[in-house]
Amino acid sequence: MRAGIITIGNEILKGKTVNTNAAEIGRILYFSGYEIYRGLVVPDIESEIRWAFRSLVGLCNVIVSSGGLGPTFDDITVESFAHEFNIPLELNRETYDNIMKRTLERGLEMTKEREKMALVPSGSKIIKNPVGSAPGIEFVIDNSKIFILPGIPKEMRSMMESIGQEIKLNDSFYFEDSIIVKGIYEASLAPSIKKIMDKYGGSVYIKSHPSLYDNNKSVIEIEVSAKGINLDEAKMIVKSAINDIVEEIHNLREIFKE
Amino acid sequence: MRAGIITIGNEILKGKTVNTNAAEIGRILYFSGYEIYRGLVVPDIESEIRWAFRSLVGLCNVIVSSGGLGPTFDDITVESFAHEFNIPLELNRETYDNIMKRTLERGLEMTKEREKMALVPSGSKIIKNPVGSAPGIEFVIDNSKIFILPGIPKEMRSMMESIGQEIKLNDSFYFEDSIIVKGIYEASLAPSIKKIMDKYGGSVYIKSHPSLYDNNKSVIEIEVSAKGINLDEAKMIVKSAINDIVEEIHNLREIFKE
Repeated sequence: MRAGIITIGNEILKGKTVNTNAAEIGRILYFSGYEIYRGLVVPDIESEIRWAFRSLVGLCNVIVSSGGLGPTFDDITVESFAHEFNIPLELNRETYDNIMKRTLERGLEMTKEREKMALVPSGSKIIKNPVGSAPGIEFVIDNSKIFILPGIPKEMRSMMESIGQEIKLNDSFYFEDSIIVKGIYEASLAPSIKKIMDKYGGSVYIKSHPSLYDNNKSVIEIEVSAKGINLDEAKMIVKSAINDIVEEIHNLREIFKE
Repeated sequence: MRAGIITIGNEILKGKTVNTNAAEIGRILYFSGYEIYRGLVVPDIESEIRWAFRSLVGLCNVIVSSGGLGPTFDDITVESFAHEFNIPLELNRETYDNIMKRTLERGLEMTKEREKMALVPSGSKIIKNPVGSAPGIEFVIDNSKIFILPGIPKEMRSMMESIGQEIKLNDSFYFEDSIIVKGIYEASLAPSIKKIMDKYGGSVYIKSHPSLYDNNKSVIEIEVSAKGINLDEAKMIVKSAINDIVEEIHNLREIFKE
């Protein structure tokens, strides 16, 4: 089962804000059993927001967007999504009442900008926002379940935890672990990693991350992940593959004297 | 002029690694005068890497990818790119010699995994890698200038600085500044922001970022950016727009007693 992630906002594209939302959403979807297939970042431009949803609907079983649900002129995610799929917008009464209540409590007036946050595509399921005004939206098109969430991390996070539970795949138990290897280069390790992955016939994924140098010696993190019919099986496969890697590294050290 | 950013790697999609590369690349492209139009993150899968390049070539004047240039089996960016645009791969002699030199200095053997890093699309310009083995690649297709960079941040960064200089648009001087506003809600500010942007007829971009709460009071960063024929003009426009915002906020405080 595939998942896609959309992040909406100029501030992400131009690097003012680092895209931690996509990372948090990706992690939750991954541990719910999904293959994360594409991550798209688009500006606050209707044609691009429409392109992003169009590129994932039909291809991904779950799609999560964040950003563009606020009250300002450039918060246009919901209307862009609705236009793309020809869905009429309608005022969600409960959301409107919540926004009205928050507004009056603060001694403010209801404005069309506040009202906008209560407009949702007809047929949406509303995801309550316990820490802000704009609700999240759940919508199904074909085989794609779409979640449209706010961009403010605290608000996104408050919704994403429960979504992860809701969409969790029961047949997917992932486990991952990693080991740190010093003094052997990634290119020396590459054939061994391929050999071990072949041995497990696709049930194990091994990736090396050469990120650090310590006194000019190569330091590589080798990440091993596996999927099992339960968590114990996934753990067992990972442990076995790590043992194989350790043995290979022992042999490599003999050969290369690294 | 538009720019697009591609990040390649499963570790980004599943949130193991936060996509700081895209943010750093976006920032440099933005300050070189480009509109950052799309950011794509794809896994180490040939069809998806091909899709990413295909989605940006022709649409963006500059395309920068990072990731997938290393020696392991899943580093397939260069060959995927070459397959998509029917470009033969050829051994780049200077790169091969550099890799051979690094390999021999370390008392290691040349392997096909190391050799792979010297294979480049025919017609590429090589971008030297002062801190690693795999070179960067510069290639032009139609009106798109494409830069294919390694994913290791230190290596990407060493190439990106000079690329930013190379592609800088002379007619684009950007300036941005921001102010912090406490105790007024984003929805109250929204009409004022729209009014001021209209006043400047598109030469100023104003975006509010409601990111913090201080003692339950709303705290908003208002970011103002402008483009000018020189830096002084851009600065002057931003300063003038910020003065307008400060005046509007003064009026709002009178009305809402926020």
